[in-house]
Amino acid sequence: MAIMKKGNLICTKCKRTFPIERIYPRCDICNEPLEVEKAVRGKIHEGNVLNQTILERYADFFPFTRIDKAISLREGFTSLVGSLKLASELGVENILFKNEGQNPTWSFKDRGTVTGMQHAISLRYKKIGTVSTGNMAASVAAYGAKAGCETFILVSASLPVGKFNPIAIYEPTLIKVDGDYSKLYFESLEVGRQNGIYFINSDVPFRIEGSKTIAFEICEQMHFEVPDYVVVPTSAGGNIRGILKGFEEFRLCGLIDKVPKMICAEASGCSPIYDAYISNAEVVSRVENPHTIAHAIENPYPPSGNEVLRRIRENGGTIVTVTDEEIIQAQKQLAQVGIFGQPASAVPLAAVKKLGEKAFFGENDTVVCIVSGGGLKDTAVFKKHELKILNCSLENLNELIGSGL
Amino acid sequence: MAIMKKGNLICTKCKRTFPIERIYPRCDICNEPLEVEKAVRGKIHEGNVLNQTILERYADFFPFTRIDKAISLREGFTSLVGSLKLASELGVENILFKNEGQNPTWSFKDRGTVTGMQHAISLRYKKIGTVSTGNMAASVAAYGAKAGCETFILVSASLPVGKFNPIAIYEPTLIKVDGDYSKLYFESLEVGRQNGIYFINSDVPFRIEGSKTIAFEICEQMHFEVPDYVVVPTSAGGNIRGILKGFEEFRLCGLIDKVPKMICAEASGCSPIYDAYISNAEVVSRVENPHTIAHAIENPYPPSGNEVLRRIRENGGTIVTVTDEEIIQAQKQLAQVGIFGQPASAVPLAAVKKLGEKAFFGENDTVVCIVSGGGLKDTAVFKKHELKILNCSLENLNELIGSGL
Repeated sequence: MAIMKKGNLICTKCKRTFPIERIYPRCDICNEPLEVEKAVRGKIHEGNVLNQTILERYADFFPFTRIDKAISLREGFTSLVGSLKLASELGVENILFKNEGQNPTWSFKDRGTVTGMQHAISLRYKKIGTVSTGNMAASVAAYGAKAGCETFILVSASLPVGKFNPIAIYEPTLIKVDGDYSKLYFESLEVGRQNGIYFINSDVPFRIEGSKTIAFEICEQMHFEVPDYVVVPTSAGGNIRGILKGFEEFRLCGLIDKVPKMICAEASGCSPIYDAYISNAEVVSRVENPHTIAHAIENPYPPSGNEVLRRIRENGGTIVTVTDEEIIQAQKQLAQVGIFGQPASAVPLAAVKKLGEKAFFGENDTVVCIVSGGGLKDTAVFKKHELKILNCSLENLNELIGSGL
Repeated sequence: MAIMKKGNLICTKCKRTFPIERIYPRCDICNEPLEVEKAVRGKIHEGNVLNQTILERYADFFPFTRIDKAISLREGFTSLVGSLKLASELGVENILFKNEGQNPTWSFKDRGTVTGMQHAISLRYKKIGTVSTGNMAASVAAYGAKAGCETFILVSASLPVGKFNPIAIYEPTLIKVDGDYSKLYFESLEVGRQNGIYFINSDVPFRIEGSKTIAFEICEQMHFEVPDYVVVPTSAGGNIRGILKGFEEFRLCGLIDKVPKMICAEASGCSPIYDAYISNAEVVSRVENPHTIAHAIENPYPPSGNEVLRRIRENGGTIVTVTDEEIIQAQKQLAQVGIFGQPASAVPLAAVKKLGEKAFFGENDTVVCIVSGGGLKDTAVFKKHELKILNCSLENLNELIGSGL
């Protein structure tokens, strides 16, 4: 059983500290999200990646004293695939895609689920849960099953019926909750507190710890040359926070010499962080009637929204929105790189194209896009694509192909 | 541009040799499949797996003199996940799952596609293709797009409409061919010959080369302790041939000291190799009216069927069939290990359960099951599962969970 190193949770806003064993993820005073103190020294545990988990390879950067390897499904260690052809079209030096669709449940969520589970298990929790409409629900259900935990998955009653099955297959306690979905996040924290359930929600400190490993791997995969920009499709705000924290920790530890500029990419039909950014507000406001084809990032009131605003302003990156049409186009363009991502995964490429048109990037810039989840997660989107299929009889096949079509 | 090492293709039956540049995959005399001569010396190129492709790490075991890294989507390097709990239930020492659903297009096919592409490109082919109803079609379409090849995907006109989209998204020339599907494999070879298209079909020699890497990784992941059994869901027969060849090459090169026994697992509704095996036949016969829920292995006349028969008899493994009901049960049980596989992927676990009931395994045996593709590939199967979903209002949530359900 893992136990915790010394260290603290820190409020991202007021910097008050809280014990590392705490599971309530927000500051008692500010109601802003907490995070694990940054690692200031550490090195990568070199070794055969085929025999490691991210928990082991990057152990120095986590506050665990022991690692329970049995909870891992060997998440992470995903591909970073470049396209010089696309880079040339976009007028940048290189564009690379971090393909998180290669995770065990086909989204980046698995990284944060395993670190959250590690925390939960180190604190001897036997019950875990999450609030999610998709990627995170499947992830927590899978890891809960593997670890033999009682697993509570709370989803909105408005979720289309087909979306439940890929969660239910892992046999969690799956509850459709009727009511205001954005209140469910906060309600789950209360339910967790009263019932001894560790809710590994979207931006809890130990999920952020998992997202850090995206940055760690990018550094390794780029031989510690840091990209100029990293573009992250953003919903609750946890993933972009984690990736930035990862780069910062590697810099603090002397493994890299700069931190990339972060680009927070939202859908124009649900862009609470962007809206606050352009109006110079300090806090995000709830979006009424959110609507985007990129359902995975359709969060009208992101719990880490204010912190993302603070961090982007400090980091010097930017926030950008893209339309559904731009997302669909980018999804098809991404497939030409050989990567079929869910609509949210195409948001970064759409954002790069949009910023490129405004001459945002320099020709020597390297841009990394986070492909957050696999395309098979959302097949309803196919009806937005015009996909070409030819018909032919076996007898006429040779002639058809010989004709040059 | 890669060029080829010296070496030969060898007929798996009569042992006649053919030039390594040949793309027609069968013997002119026997009409049996060819294979690349076995590597007899070589070592693993140690290095950071995060920065390698399987083509590079295992370069000594391929007949390429140069590797074109740009064609890779960083396939392979998938997880090997064990479950001691399940092993104990099954009465074996350990059971491990090689999760091929973590590949770029979510099936093992990507390994053979990249080696096939490497061969095609080394021979300066600009047109590639495949005949497939699913996994292989998506894989070849993705890699063809990445490499900028003209890509021809031939599928049966009887394929359900929803199955086309995950192929079409990569924008290949996708042709629905009306006529006897099992003749299409042979017709494609002719079409390829006449039109300069390299058809990377299910059991071509250079696809088998990719499947070898499953064995290589298992060896590394088990620290060169070889499993007692490897169970492979079997359709055309290419994958099980490749995995066995991989173990044999590592043994020839002194990296391991034995080869595991191979278990060929078929669906009882389509079991041409099993049927020949139990009737002591030397050749497989076509199955009429094949029908199984495991569509990915529903091949009524497997082109490598005779060779699989020969190899299993020589290797000392066995061939087993499982029913749709057993597949469904195993799919759910596999999800309890945290892995959601497509129905074909659950066939090995179903086979292990069935063989276990006949006391086939010893209590010290370690068994590896090949999970051939991800569960999101086939969502129609959900209607065969009874999956539980509870309903609740936001107000009553705490009470419901507190009640212990």
